[in-house]
Amino acid sequence: MRNRWWNRLVDQVADRGLGLSRPNQNPDVMKRLEENCRALLTSRGEASGVALAREVVRAVDGLDEAGKTRFLQLLAERFGPDRDTVLAAAERFRESDETADLQELLRVVEPPRQEVFRRLNGAPDGTRVLVRLRETLLRQLKAHPELKPVNSDLQHLLKSWFNPGFLQLQRISWDRSPARLMEKLIQYESVHAIQSWDDLRRRLASDRRCFGFFHPALPDEPLIFVEVALVQGLATHTAPLLDPESPVGNNDEADTAIFFSISNCQVGLRGVSFGNFLLKQVMGELISEFPHVERYATLSPVPGFSRALRMEGDYADGFTRDRIAALIQDDAEALTVAAGVSDPVDALHQLLEAPLSHQEVLAEPMSRLLLAYLTRVRRHDTVADAVARFHLSNGARLEQIDPFADHSQTRMDASYGMMVNYRYIAEAVEENHERFVKTGEVVLSRNLQKQQKRINAAWDGNATKTGASRSRTTG
Amino acid sequence: MRNRWWNRLVDQVADRGLGLSRPNQNPDVMKRLEENCRALLTSRGEASGVALAREVVRAVDGLDEAGKTRFLQLLAERFGPDRDTVLAAAERFRESDETADLQELLRVVEPPRQEVFRRLNGAPDGTRVLVRLRETLLRQLKAHPELKPVNSDLQHLLKSWFNPGFLQLQRISWDRSPARLMEKLIQYESVHAIQSWDDLRRRLASDRRCFGFFHPALPDEPLIFVEVALVQGLATHTAPLLDPESPVGNNDEADTAIFFSISNCQVGLRGVSFGNFLLKQVMGELISEFPHVERYATLSPVPGFSRALRMEGDYADGFTRDRIAALIQDDAEALTVAAGVSDPVDALHQLLEAPLSHQEVLAEPMSRLLLAYLTRVRRHDTVADAVARFHLSNGARLEQIDPFADHSQTRMDASYGMMVNYRYIAEAVEENHERFVKTGEVVLSRNLQKQQKRINAAWDGNATKTGASRSRTTG
Amino acid sequence: MRNRWWNRLVDQVADRGLGLSRPNQNPDVMKRLEENCRALLTSRGEASGVALAREVVRAVDGLDEAGKTRFLQLLAERFGPDRDTVLAAAERFRESDETADLQELLRVVEPPRQEVFRRLNGAPDGTRVLVRLRETLLRQLKAHPELKPVNSDLQHLLKSWFNPGFLQLQRISWDRSPARLMEKLIQYESVHAIQSWDDLRRRLASDRRCFGFFHPALPDEPLIFVEVALVQGLATHTAPLLDPESPVGNNDEADTAIFFSISNCQVGLRGVSFGNFLLKQVMGELISEFPHVERYATLSPVPGFSRALRMEGDYADGFTRDRIAALIQDDAEALTVAAGVSDPVDALHQLLEAPLSHQEVLAEPMSRLLLAYLTRVRRHDTVADAVARFHLSNGARLEQIDPFADHSQTRMDASYGMMVNYRYIAEAVEENHERFVKTGEVVLSRNLQKQQKRINAAWDGNATKTGASRSRTTG
Amino acid sequence: MRNRWWNRLVDQVADRGLGLSRPNQNPDVMKRLEENCRALLTSRGEASGVALAREVVRAVDGLDEAGKTRFLQLLAERFGPDRDTVLAAAERFRESDETADLQELLRVVEPPRQEVFRRLNGAPDGTRVLVRLRETLLRQLKAHPELKPVNSDLQHLLKSWFNPGFLQLQRISWDRSPARLMEKLIQYESVHAIQSWDDLRRRLASDRRCFGFFHPALPDEPLIFVEVALVQGLATHTAPLLDPESPVGNNDEADTAIFFSISNCQVGLRGVSFGNFLLKQVMGELISEFPHVERYATLSPVPGFSRALRMEGDYADGFTRDRIAALIQDDAEALTVAAGVSDPVDALHQLLEAPLSHQEVLAEPMSRLLLAYLTRVRRHDTVADAVARFHLSNGARLEQIDPFADHSQTRMDASYGMMVNYRYIAEAVEENHERFVKTGEVVLSRNLQKQQKRINAAWDGNATKTGASRSRTTG
Repeated sequence: MRNRWWNRLVDQVADRGLGLSRPNQNPDVMKRLEENCRALLTSRGEASGVALAREVVRAVDGLDEAGKTRFLQLLAERFGPDRDTVLAAAERFRESDETADLQELLRVVEPPRQEVFRRLNGAPDGTRVLVRLRETLLRQLKAHPELKPVNSDLQHLLKSWFNPGFLQLQRISWDRSPARLMEKLIQYESVHAIQSWDDLRRRLASDRRCFGFFHPALPDEPLIFVEVALVQGLATHTAPLLDPESPVGNNDEADTAIFFSISNCQVGLRGVSFGNFLLKQVMGELISEFPHVERYATLSPVPGFSRALRMEGDYADGFTRDRIAALIQDDAEALTVAAGVSDPVDALHQLLEAPLSHQEVLAEPMSRLLLAYLTRVRRHDTVADAVARFHLSNGARLEQIDPFADHSQTRMDASYGMMVNYRYIAEAVEENHERFVKTGEVVLSRNLQKQQKRINAAWDGNATKTGASRSRTTG
Repeated sequence: MRNRWWNRLVDQVADRGLGLSRPNQNPDVMKRLEENCRALLTSRGEASGVALAREVVRAVDGLDEAGKTRFLQLLAERFGPDRDTVLAAAERFRESDETADLQELLRVVEPPRQEVFRRLNGAPDGTRVLVRLRETLLRQLKAHPELKPVNSDLQHLLKSWFNPGFLQLQRISWDRSPARLMEKLIQYESVHAIQSWDDLRRRLASDRRCFGFFHPALPDEPLIFVEVALVQGLATHTAPLLDPESPVGNNDEADTAIFFSISNCQVGLRGVSFGNFLLKQVMGELISEFPHVERYATLSPVPGFSRALRMEGDYADGFTRDRIAALIQDDAEALTVAAGVSDPVDALHQLLEAPLSHQEVLAEPMSRLLLAYLTRVRRHDTVADAVARFHLSNGARLEQIDPFADHSQTRMDASYGMMVNYRYIAEAVEENHERFVKTGEVVLSRNLQKQQKRINAAWDGNATKTGASRSRTTG
Repeated sequence: MRNRWWNRLVDQVADRGLGLSRPNQNPDVMKRLEENCRALLTSRGEASGVALAREVVRAVDGLDEAGKTRFLQLLAERFGPDRDTVLAAAERFRESDETADLQELLRVVEPPRQEVFRRLNGAPDGTRVLVRLRETLLRQLKAHPELKPVNSDLQHLLKSWFNPGFLQLQRISWDRSPARLMEKLIQYESVHAIQSWDDLRRRLASDRRCFGFFHPALPDEPLIFVEVALVQGLATHTAPLLDPESPVGNNDEADTAIFFSISNCQVGLRGVSFGNFLLKQVMGELISEFPHVERYATLSPVPGFSRALRMEGDYADGFTRDRIAALIQDDAEALTVAAGVSDPVDALHQLLEAPLSHQEVLAEPMSRLLLAYLTRVRRHDTVADAVARFHLSNGARLEQIDPFADHSQTRMDASYGMMVNYRYIAEAVEENHERFVKTGEVVLSRNLQKQQKRINAAWDGNATKTGASRSRTTG
Repeated sequence: MRNRWWNRLVDQVADRGLGLSRPNQNPDVMKRLEENCRALLTSRGEASGVALAREVVRAVDGLDEAGKTRFLQLLAERFGPDRDTVLAAAERFRESDETADLQELLRVVEPPRQEVFRRLNGAPDGTRVLVRLRETLLRQLKAHPELKPVNSDLQHLLKSWFNPGFLQLQRISWDRSPARLMEKLIQYESVHAIQSWDDLRRRLASDRRCFGFFHPALPDEPLIFVEVALVQGLATHTAPLLDPESPVGNNDEADTAIFFSISNCQVGLRGVSFGNFLLKQVMGELISEFPHVERYATLSPVPGFSRALRMEGDYADGFTRDRIAALIQDDAEALTVAAGVSDPVDALHQLLEAPLSHQEVLAEPMSRLLLAYLTRVRRHDTVADAVARFHLSNGARLEQIDPFADHSQTRMDASYGMMVNYRYIAEAVEENHERFVKTGEVVLSRNLQKQQKRINAAWDGNATKTGASRSRTTG
């Protein structure tokens, strides 16, 4: 029920000679933005505050990338805490040890730009413009490290505003969701690109489900969405899930729900996590609609596997030639024969230049290598793979390795087409989560547990040579 | 789309032996609450965070007033910043002058309970429970001044979460709004109590409008609502507006919209202001629905007038016997005759013991006294009357004095039944607001401006004797 | 999305001098109504049709009872088929035996007022006004038998328009349904009058359900609604179900859903049946929401029992003194002792003057008499009791007799406070229905079946003396 | 709130051995359908009626075209009125002249299949299946004239069920309307085919409006929809309106609303008119949203012009060689020069083989010929052109001739690309309608009135030779 008359009331103020209507062309724009942001902080009456805030919001919205960067720099330079005031307040607190002085210190150390952001967020369209502004901020952060405190402030506030209690889960469907939202799905899908409206329609057919989180202040913008396929048995390949021509299944016969795509939509909300809450709420919905479905699992990519196996970049420290050799030892003969070279590791790398032509030979050794990668290659004291980290910390377990499950270029590049299933078991989610978070342990399915022992032996046998010492056996 | 299965997933965690289900009976409850709140801050995984947060939310919701007070004290004592850490960080910043150290100081000086509140707000029902908790906080603040920092933190966060950008304006109507909401109107109406369902139905008849603000996380709870009557000419008495038997007017003939009741509903949101935004958005709606209505005004109480006139409490410094005498000088004879006493001020006070019996004699002198009260009696450098302050700072002007406009006991006690109209003129709102906020000037209608000159003379003539020196003439 | 501009377009036509705005005062109103109705039939363009229809609808809506009666008489006299045309068409068909001539006969024999009604139904508000008009029609039918064909036509059309495919089932709740609808429940409840808003609130508490049918053209008017209580065990008394102070039950513990009140709301739709469809759809909703509820039953009044037992009016032919004597034979002693008279039937009637004081003595004989009434007293070749007929023909079975279950005056008058439960068993509904409709058999619960044998013996033993010969044993 | 449990209750009946689940393969299907339809008429209880009706609805829905045709024949042969009964009832009425006997005649002459249709319409999905059945009926009518009475019955009922009072106007938009509805627009658009999702998105951009009528029993099926463009000045070409790349206009600057496409969606509802009501309600919406728009007009095709000018088929009797010659007399020289032949009529026809290459020469004579066609070529005592008839009878006036306004093949074939604007002027709609309906007069804009005189002269001058005598001058 936002209305144009209210907007006019607001505009009336906003238009009074502030001259920010074409911000990029206006040489004085930064000066005026600074004045207005300053006024936001001093105005005693909130009435003019909303009008001013709206004015600033509009001006910022009209800025190009360079303009926004300058505005962010302005906030960094001129809307931080005042050093002398902070130090004086700290000194007063040191001497007095009074709560009131601590409160005062808290007050003066909080960057005034936080209050600017809060006021802007209260204006019509403010939330959207701040999220967009953060996109610029994230893009410019490397080139402009002075913006780091601004980023910290804005992320802090966005986390508070986009807390799970304010999010709304919505079913997204071909029959009920508007065309505009369909376009956004096409735009935002980041795992398996949507090729056409026909592709999209198939993904929303009766044997599929799609859910997203929305925020009341951005009603037409999905924050994150997940696509689910209802199937029989654990899905081991992506192609059948994505085929627009595939026959629509009978949900009464489905026993498994496969989460095959999760896409974050808002770059500007990086660092504000939704995925965990979304997956669990969606599982709740699915259990309620399909009580007979007994398995909830993903079909997930392994973005870092190829680079780890090639020991590239950050992944240099996990796999070693010796470890790889030990892990593929059982398949050495088959590999050397297939490749026509005598060293098994060389043979492996050679065959991996065209892995789809050698799936039979490669499936087993690659599965072992992938399991080793997911369980033993670590960074920052946790598993190195980002997708693994996400699902494992959510309480999933690693259920199955799917050799050459996805032949798309993206997946071939990232993991030679290898994919995995993570599985969510309601009764075990919390315990898995605790184990993963507290001990770093990757919880495995029974099948994978068996393989894990040999992998640990191979890995740690070599580990002595490389100095890696972490030894572990899993449940 | 919150669902019971999701809730069960969450409960599964929550129920695992935390034993907080009957918090008031449990001697260890505070210990466990503290552990859980501590865990909220350390848990690396957000999954358990929501479960824990929900657990805490439920436990807090189950506490009685004493229990909640203890919980707040816990937050005050154990979840504030650490003195030594703060001072060390301040010292480091003093020495380095590095942004990173300033950031760190900001981080350590922020009371950890703020993050606790943010996490609780993310749990199902968290927002409601925090708003209720703040009710306790406000009630206990006087007896427990140590809770002041907690109040400051919670108010700070509530302001951020209930910013105007997140509020939703809704029309409240007999035909469309649910019975549950009707009950809440009856419960929350704080200006003119609703006597019965018939009374309520009349207030929602076709010549009335009612609008409220709602927050997405509290969908069934109005935050504030306003009742509007569409009438001909400025309303000068409340009785006709409230009479359940009054005939329903024809909106096509109305030229004036009277805001006759504004009620804040959530005690726990005190200090988070909505009224200003509500009034302006509602005016927007009304202008759009009734383009022919040309006047937007209130019929407002004057809560402090009686006490000011009797020079009671905080109001002791405005009116003096001399000033009153000067202001009623013209009516001295009529008053003394009516009262049968020779001193006009004595006569006035005597007649005011039954003012409705002497309306004719009292109307003029009381109007002058009321105008003096609203424009000259000041506190904290602004007008003393809270309702006046609200409307004037919103940009309204004082339009008219309505002698003996409301005969209810509440209004007789507060202002001898005197009421006033504040008027909102779209084109002047911003300027009025600025004048009031910057110079403290009370903007008056043309009629009242004429009277104001004599009032100033009377007041300031006496002022020399009392030391008050503020002299002012108005536009 | 009906809008005022569209209405103005229509009004522009309507207002052009038709002068029907104050129909009751206008001496020519019937003449003009006739002209307009005539025009509705001849106008080739539908454009003017809607405007004219609206005009007529408004005029009819403004008529008082006498005016509406005259309008109905007009339709009876002037808008029936033309005798000569009909007979000529019949003659032509007799001679030709052509389909086209039969079609023509069909066309000319259809009363033109049917088309008038159809056109009026297409105008804004037309459906409502026609339903109201039928109320008058039904009220006047006895005094004005000439209106019978009009009633027949209108009922025929209403049945077509209010067919079950067009009805919408809606849950009615305190939390979601508007206050306006609440008022209508109070107004329309016809079984257990709603005493107050508190009473209503209790009937919509969380252990109750209320559902109604609505028609898209009358969106704010319930057509019929049913109130359901979720309880443990079969309800045998109404008082606990209606007590506003009764504690709210826990639905997880409920095993029985009691339909304790079904009210038709629209007198004007008499003869258009909804109850059957409503009950079954509501059972579907309840089964879906409460899969653990295992019993669906009513607690129903027996409106004709008292009169039957007193052999009054239409009921004179069922009970005879001999039959009553036979049915209460087992309790003869107790009855005569309690009443202090020697003849058991006299004793019974005497005790029935204050039945609540003799519940213990009366419970058994009265239960037997009631079972006899429901199974053996018949009219028009089916059971005599209207409520019984409704539920039995819907496929329910007679489950239980509840002696003195309802002490309200209405029920004491109708059935000495005796009530019964009809039970709906999903698997048996269809078979029960068929048996009842085809053979007239009243399907009984196992318990009642046992009693029934003795009752039949008593009834038929006496029957020989009275000439009644129908003998039956039940399943 | 239709639910699966209710459906199961119904199914339970339906499935009991009726064996109609695969109707086309079942040799006895017609026999069983007949039995069930017969049962629909005799069943005393409506309970089984809905189940039976649902059973029939499903079976009919499963029939192929041949099966449906047989079912319709069944209804024609076995569910018509009984001849002897009809004649006997007619005889009785002749003798008695009693209302009751007339009622009885009415009852027996009504084909029982009407009641069958009514009962089917009450079943879930019944309305949709009947509308689909009528599609078959209309397709088969020519080959099966015996179905005419069935068509008459079904159309009669559909008119009653789809009366304007039951229709719901809905705005269709890219932002709010579901993807499923978008697909249907693409499928049903019958004037300017929608080429792609991009084309569709442009048609729903902010300077366009689209509205449709929906029926509550077919909530996802548009019945008719209209597309409107907001533009400056009367649109004279279709290409700019349809160009997906055209810039989106500013509605504040628009002064004209162009209805550029109206599509009926349901073949099965042929003969049930919606267009008139739709256009007027949409105009109401537009006037309300855009009070500054001052002109409401169409850009319409002229489907019969080419054939009329070539004197083909039904159009043979309007244009004659002499009349054409007279009408193009002023342009004779230009035409003969351009074509290089000496006879102007021959020249015209030759140039019309590639009219777009000779637009300049042809524009004027073709405009005159088109005006003559629209005003003078008549059939069944009204204008021959169907689109003209529709708008004129709705009260529009012929506003402007647009030479070569649409270069699509369809329009080139139909009218050499000539289009016209019909304009709706609120104040004149009713009068225009009356004039057109009563006198057949085509109301013209002032500009066209001037041309009309000469055209009449040319036409009637020739008329003497051809025997046409209708002479008329306009407004």
